[in-house]
Amino acid sequence: MEFNVDRHISGQFNHELEQVLSHVFEMGGLVESQLSFSLDAITKTDAAIAAQVRENDKKVNQYETVIDEECTRIIAKRQPAATDLRLILTITKTISDLERIGDECCRVVKVVQETTSSTQHKFLLQLEHLGKKVLEVLSKVLNAFARMDCHQAFSVYQMDKEIDTIYKEVSDKLVAEMMAQPNAIPQIIDILWALRSLERIGDRCQNISEHVIYLIKGRDVRHLERDQIAALVGR
Amino acid sequence: MEFNVDRHISGQFNHELEQVLSHVFEMGGLVESQLSFSLDAITKTDAAIAAQVRENDKKVNQYETVIDEECTRIIAKRQPAATDLRLILTITKTISDLERIGDECCRVVKVVQETTSSTQHKFLLQLEHLGKKVLEVLSKVLNAFARMDCHQAFSVYQMDKEIDTIYKEVSDKLVAEMMAQPNAIPQIIDILWALRSLERIGDRCQNISEHVIYLIKGRDVRHLERDQIAALVGR
Repeated sequence: MEFNVDRHISGQFNHELEQVLSHVFEMGGLVESQLSFSLDAITKTDAAIAAQVRENDKKVNQYETVIDEECTRIIAKRQPAATDLRLILTITKTISDLERIGDECCRVVKVVQETTSSTQHKFLLQLEHLGKKVLEVLSKVLNAFARMDCHQAFSVYQMDKEIDTIYKEVSDKLVAEMMAQPNAIPQIIDILWALRSLERIGDRCQNISEHVIYLIKGRDVRHLERDQIAALVGR
Repeated sequence: MEFNVDRHISGQFNHELEQVLSHVFEMGGLVESQLSFSLDAITKTDAAIAAQVRENDKKVNQYETVIDEECTRIIAKRQPAATDLRLILTITKTISDLERIGDECCRVVKVVQETTSSTQHKFLLQLEHLGKKVLEVLSKVLNAFARMDCHQAFSVYQMDKEIDTIYKEVSDKLVAEMMAQPNAIPQIIDILWALRSLERIGDRCQNISEHVIYLIKGRDVRHLERDQIAALVGR
């Protein structure tokens, strides 16, 4: 039942499948750099980088459209069997999550473009901690996908608690700031939305880790309990 | 290139496809009732209804898992050609959006479960307007899917402006309330999150309307401009 990477890499895993996979990895790399640039935009309060991120999102969207078409074509033409089909379906789900991560990056940098005061700049820096953690998670889950590494995918799955903790901490701090400075509420709310977007990126990475586990183990784990998934991946 | 409903309903559209479609409609009906109950929970500040919504979400999740398995099995076994394949792929995307709408309903009712004061109850009622609009949109897009009605799908697509307007209005009002009553900020923030979840449900309905247009017109419209989509659907 396990996904046999070797079989594919050597023989039957034909040119079309390799090509679509390489597009997925390119898209993943692009989204990773989008998130990384978004964090740059935040720490530097740099509206030009923010504008670039929003511009690059078109490329992310293009990847989604193109890869989805490739997948449909492969299914129609090659009529793939169990494991190949699972790979294709995993890809279509994964690119949908990647595209949404791109959208969240755009939401994150929007707040940079709207930042005018130095007070708000100070609040902006509150996003850094969660941003770095989420970038780490994204990078790990893309590696897990590239290596078809089920254990690494599961380790990403488990990182959601860390993300939640940081999110809660920063969010509480921002709410306290609002209560102390009611005049700054509209600015701080924008920061809170951006924080939420970062947290959502973490959720999307979780989804991708579930897709990877599905691909390798052949079992849909989206609605299983954590210990059931742990048993499945042998952790 | 258009999706030919008659051909399917009469002849070749076999039992398996009919069955999976009927499961999708059941799931859609369930999610619609989840949203409707969520609004009830809000207007009545009824924690019991809220708890029921969260409990029912397990059924929504089950539908997603089962339908996804059915789709995979149909692709593997029947090796569907162009239009049938498009239907299957549309279904897998649609149920993913439906499942997320279910998740957002759980987020919405969470705020009801946490509401303790009569002040917060007053704020809770601010969610009603957007909630009703979003329920209308969900109901329309499910009809559009059931009838494979491209024009109706496009009319849903165009309703996002209304949703945005209501969202902005209510959100501004809540921010003003926060500035006026800094002590109530933590409670109002919870309402704001619920408001955001309702707005996200609207986004998901938009996605489904795009899937329906893809199904009927055979063209991925996710990243097209509004007037390009209008031209495609003949509006």
